[in-house]
Amino acid sequence: MGGVSTTAERDRVPKQDRSRATRQRLLEAAVACLAEHGWAGSTVAVVAERAGVSRGAAQHHFPTREDLFTAAVEYVAEQRSTALRELFPDGPADRRAVVTALVDLYTGPLFRAALHLWVAASDEEQLRSRVTELEARVGRETHRIAVELLGADETRPGVRETVQGLLDMARGLGLANLLTDDTARRRRVVAQWAELLEESLG
Amino acid sequence: MGGVSTTAERDRVPKQDRSRATRQRLLEAAVACLAEHGWAGSTVAVVAERAGVSRGAAQHHFPTREDLFTAAVEYVAEQRSTALRELFPDGPADRRAVVTALVDLYTGPLFRAALHLWVAASDEEQLRSRVTELEARVGRETHRIAVELLGADETRPGVRETVQGLLDMARGLGLANLLTDDTARRRRVVAQWAELLEESLG
Repeated sequence: MGGVSTTAERDRVPKQDRSRATRQRLLEAAVACLAEHGWAGSTVAVVAERAGVSRGAAQHHFPTREDLFTAAVEYVAEQRSTALRELFPDGPADRRAVVTALVDLYTGPLFRAALHLWVAASDEEQLRSRVTELEARVGRETHRIAVELLGADETRPGVRETVQGLLDMARGLGLANLLTDDTARRRRVVAQWAELLEESLG
Repeated sequence: MGGVSTTAERDRVPKQDRSRATRQRLLEAAVACLAEHGWAGSTVAVVAERAGVSRGAAQHHFPTREDLFTAAVEYVAEQRSTALRELFPDGPADRRAVVTALVDLYTGPLFRAALHLWVAASDEEQLRSRVTELEARVGRETHRIAVELLGADETRPGVRETVQGLLDMARGLGLANLLTDDTARRRRVVAQWAELLEESLG
């Protein structure tokens, strides 16, 4: 079961914790693998080796390739959501800082990994429904955080769509950062759109 | 050379026109193929068959796979730019109509094809520089059209970034439409951001 851990470690760490640690290593390795090698280059075997976990242990946690990679993208998305909330522990904050942090969600390895998964899902039937469902869940959660941190009042007409459009822009900025370092241009766009939001949300 | 054309056709149509028609058929088939089957499923042979052109003729026009697919995405992007300008022959037009038309650029088969090419380029060195250059060219042209049709005055501070952000949003909306039909939500987002643009651009 335990992968690379030694007998001594196994004696010290309770079995349930070891299992959870193995699972996390697999999920993190899966996202890194997807971001670097794409769907075609990402198999359970490659991820197990990268995580230093036996193939049997990997298959115990994730019976199929689809299970592993959708769980991985969801796990890292949850981690990033938590990190985002922790950045602004007092709730609504300076709009420019919040927009910057939201856009940052879409420019790292998680976005690259998710993008590979989306594109693969658009061609593969058995992946499609899983990824669609995952994307809806992650999207709802990101929208919830954005509304909260921007202090947006969604009972006002148009506010919901303003926030949605902002997150669509963030996704587009992530795409623009895929092949080249788009940081300088992105900063200027974020600064300007934060101002537009300020005027619109009041 | 001539692919599916008959001898009679060959006699009627000058050689140069036949060659141009073959080239166009290959480019259109390449984009359709990329949109449907992704980079991994898109080879010169598959495209040649789809276009009803011999493999030799395809290779005469496009010596490498990279040549064919980058030329195809560029060709269809140019066609769509021309169609967009023709939609608004009198220049600056109703902002909501223009934003809708700009966003439409990112929700069809061309965007799906380009997305597959971008994602493949992010993993493959020999494709990367070609696609980066292509993306910059197409992006500049789309920005130029957007500024013109929105009647945006880029000498005013922030206007350039407002338009850039709008095109990033359009790209993000394209991504959101990849796995599900996002039309209804997209319409609401476009309506709201067209209003915000109206207020901002004056």
